[in-house]
Amino acid sequence: MIVFERLQGDEIYLAMAEDWTSIRGGVTTPLGFRAAAVDCGIKDPDKRRLDLALITSDSPVIAAATFTTNRVKAAPIRVSAEHLRHDEVQAIIANSGNANACTGPQGIKNAKQMAKAVAKELNLRQRQVMVCSTGMIGLPMPMDRIDPMIPTLVEGLSSTKAAGSDVAAAIMTSDTRSKELAVKFTIGDKEVRIGACAKGAGMIDPNMATMLCFMTTDACLSKAELKRATIHAVEKSFNRITIDGDMSTNDTVIVFANGASGAAKIKSGSHETEVFTKALTYLMIKLAKLLVSDGERVTKFVDICVRGASSYHHARMVAEAVAKSSLCKCSWNGEDANWGRIMDAIGYSGARIREELIDIYFDGVAAARNGMAAETPVSKLRAVMKKQAFTINIDLHLGEANYNVFTSDLSPEYVEFNRSEYSMWKRAQGDVDQPAAE
Amino acid sequence: MIVFERLQGDEIYLAMAEDWTSIRGGVTTPLGFRAAAVDCGIKDPDKRRLDLALITSDSPVIAAATFTTNRVKAAPIRVSAEHLRHDEVQAIIANSGNANACTGPQGIKNAKQMAKAVAKELNLRQRQVMVCSTGMIGLPMPMDRIDPMIPTLVEGLSSTKAAGSDVAAAIMTSDTRSKELAVKFTIGDKEVRIGACAKGAGMIDPNMATMLCFMTTDACLSKAELKRATIHAVEKSFNRITIDGDMSTNDTVIVFANGASGAAKIKSGSHETEVFTKALTYLMIKLAKLLVSDGERVTKFVDICVRGASSYHHARMVAEAVAKSSLCKCSWNGEDANWGRIMDAIGYSGARIREELIDIYFDGVAAARNGMAAETPVSKLRAVMKKQAFTINIDLHLGEANYNVFTSDLSPEYVEFNRSEYSMWKRAQGDVDQPAAE
Repeated sequence: MIVFERLQGDEIYLAMAEDWTSIRGGVTTPLGFRAAAVDCGIKDPDKRRLDLALITSDSPVIAAATFTTNRVKAAPIRVSAEHLRHDEVQAIIANSGNANACTGPQGIKNAKQMAKAVAKELNLRQRQVMVCSTGMIGLPMPMDRIDPMIPTLVEGLSSTKAAGSDVAAAIMTSDTRSKELAVKFTIGDKEVRIGACAKGAGMIDPNMATMLCFMTTDACLSKAELKRATIHAVEKSFNRITIDGDMSTNDTVIVFANGASGAAKIKSGSHETEVFTKALTYLMIKLAKLLVSDGERVTKFVDICVRGASSYHHARMVAEAVAKSSLCKCSWNGEDANWGRIMDAIGYSGARIREELIDIYFDGVAAARNGMAAETPVSKLRAVMKKQAFTINIDLHLGEANYNVFTSDLSPEYVEFNRSEYSMWKRAQGDVDQPAAE
Repeated sequence: MIVFERLQGDEIYLAMAEDWTSIRGGVTTPLGFRAAAVDCGIKDPDKRRLDLALITSDSPVIAAATFTTNRVKAAPIRVSAEHLRHDEVQAIIANSGNANACTGPQGIKNAKQMAKAVAKELNLRQRQVMVCSTGMIGLPMPMDRIDPMIPTLVEGLSSTKAAGSDVAAAIMTSDTRSKELAVKFTIGDKEVRIGACAKGAGMIDPNMATMLCFMTTDACLSKAELKRATIHAVEKSFNRITIDGDMSTNDTVIVFANGASGAAKIKSGSHETEVFTKALTYLMIKLAKLLVSDGERVTKFVDICVRGASSYHHARMVAEAVAKSSLCKCSWNGEDANWGRIMDAIGYSGARIREELIDIYFDGVAAARNGMAAETPVSKLRAVMKKQAFTINIDLHLGEANYNVFTSDLSPEYVEFNRSEYSMWKRAQGDVDQPAAE
C-alpha cells in the first residue's frame, strides 16, 4: 500500500476544486441514505470480517450504472442490469468473498434470491434491489449463510458515517484498506453532497477493474444527466487503470441520486451540471488512484501520460501497452530506468509512431530523446524511480492527441500472492488436496 | 529450464515424421555451409562468453526471412531487410549482448559496418551479408571491440558440427542452454538436410519473439517456394509462443537454401515440397517449444488449445488472452487449478463466446463444464498441474475453428530476474549509481 501526494494527469480537476469541498464521509453522507453491513462467513468462515453490505435510499432514486464489458458476466451483473431497466431501484445488496460468477442457472437464482430477501424486509419489489458480488469465481454462493442474515442487515440500517464505513469495509477482498470519499457543494442556497466507496485490489484493467464502486448523492437531476455524468467520470477514471491486465467478470459502478437535499433540479447544460460532473469525476479519479495504489503487492504508482499522438485511439493504445508490459512493470519494481522496454512496448502497441521522434521523460527528466538514450546520468533517473509515485511522459510528436493510464509495478510478491487462491479455498472447504500421483 | 517429452498440439507433424529423420546437428549440418563464433566482450567485458557469430554458404543461396512486426525496429533489422531485397545474400553476422535498437543513425551505420567488415574478409559485397543483434535496447554498439575480431571470426569458419554449436551458443542471451536441431530426408536418391539454431528467453510474444532463428538447407528450391514454406512454418511455431507478452524489436528468422546436396529442384505442389515444408515446420515448432521451456525462470510449459470457435481469429483471441493473463500464469506457477481465471480471460478476449457452453480441461481432466465447475476433485486437477508440461483444452462449442499457443507460467523469479537489467549494465560500464536524494 502506498500513499501518493499529488494528483497526476488531472490538473483540470484540481483547478476546478474550488467549486466543491472534500469532506470526511462516504455513501451515508448525502441526505436520505442509510447503510449497514454484517459478517456472514462468506469471506471468513470464522465470521471475523464484514462481507455483506446494504445501501438504501429512503425515497426513490434516479440511478445510473456501468458494468464490466467482460463477456463472462457474473450472475449479479445480469440480474442488476435487468433490474436497472425498470427505473425503480432503491437499494444495493453487495457481498465480498464470492463472485457468484460461472455459477450457471443456480447463480442467477441465488442473485435473485438476495434481491428478493432484501426487498421483502424493506417492503420493496425484487426489481428495486441491485445485487453485486466480488470474490472468487466458480464457487456456489453460500445462501445458507446469507439468507438468515438479511433481516439483521436491514435492522442495522443507519445514516451514520460509521454505517457508510462498514459498507466500504464489507466489500473489500484483497484490499488492505477501505476506500471512501465525499464532497459537498452548493446549488443555489442549498448544500448538495456526493458520497462514495469502492474496492479493487486484483484483476484490475481498463474498461472497469475487479472493482465495485457505489456512489450516492442528494442532488436532483434527470436520468439522462446522471447517466451522461457517470459515463464521463468512469471514462476518465476506472477505465484508465490497470494493475495486472486482467478484466473482471463483476465490475460495477452504481450511482444513486435521490434529490433529498431539496436543491433545485440540475438543468442540462448549466453551470451546476458542469460542477456536478466534475465533482463526480474527481471522486472517481481519486478512488481509481486509491485502487491502483492499494493493488495487490503494489509498490509503485505510475501515471503513463502519452501526448502528441495522431489520434485519441493511438494515444490510448500506447499508454495501455506500456501500462500492461510485464517487462516495464518489473523494471519499475526494481527502480530500473529501463526506457528501452518502454520503446519496445510503444513499438508493439499497434499505434502509428515514428521511432526517431519519440521522447520519454520520468517526472520531467529525459530518459530518451528522438528515440535514443538521452544524456542523463542513470542516477538522476533512478532518483525519480525511487519515489512511490511518478509520471512517465511519452511524447510521440506526431499530433495533438493525449491519453493517460494509471498503473503499478509488478512485484515478485504479486506473483506469490496469486499462486494458490483456489487450492487454499478448496482446502478450507474440506476438499482435501491428496498428494498427487507423480 | 524444463524438459517436455511429448509434442503437444502438432500431432500432424509427428504423424509425418516418418518422412524425415532427426539427426544431431545444426546450421553446419547441410552441405556447403560454414560457421564460426568468437568472444568480443559485448556480453561480458571479461570475454568469457561467445557473442559474435558468422554463418556463410560457399555458394550463393536462396534466402527467406521474417522480421519483427514491432514498429520500433532495431538497426540490423532495417539493414537486413534492405539487403534481402537484392537477392544476393550469402552470409549472416550476428551478435548477442546488445540489440543495436533505439540507437539512431549511428546504429544503422554500425550495422552496415558489421556487414561491410564481413563482406571485405569474405570477398562479398556489403549487401550480401545479413546482420542480426540481440540483447539490451538503447546502448551504443561497442564497434571498437567488434571490428578487430571480424578477421579472426572469418578465419575460424568451419563446416564442423562444433562450429554450428558455437554459433548456437554465441547468440544466447538469458537462455540457459543453446538450441540446435537438424533433420535429413531424401529427394530422389539424394540426401537433403535442414539445420537450425535459435535463441529466446525473454520478451517472447506471438508474432515473433525476442528470438533469432537461423536455418540452413542444402535442398534446392525456388525463392517463392522457400518463402511460402518459411511463412507457413513461422505461423505454426514462433507466432504461437508467448512468455511475457512483450514483443521484441529484433526478432528475425532467416532460412538459407544453397542446393549443395545436388538433389533435384523441389517443384511447387510436389510431394517433396510438402515434406520440405513439414520438416521445416517441425523444426520450428520444436525450437519454439524449446524457447518457451527455456524462458526466463519458467517452471511450466503450457499448451493452450482452443477449439470450437466461430472463426480462426476468435480461436486465436481466446488462446492468446489466456496465454498472456498474469493471473492465469501465476496460478500455473502455483499448480493451482484456478479455472475461473481462465473463464475470465476468455470473457475479456473479445472473442464471440457463450459462457454456458464453455468446457475447460487440464490434460483431459474436466475443470469446467458448461461454464461452471466440473465435479472433479481438486486433487485430480492438481495432479495434472504438478507436471512440467500440460495442455489446457478450451472448447467453446460454437463452431469448427481451432488455434493453439505455447506458453509458460509467471514466476516470482521472473520478476526478480527482470527488475534491474539496465542499472546493472550502466554500473558495469562505470556509470556509478549515486545514492539518490530521497
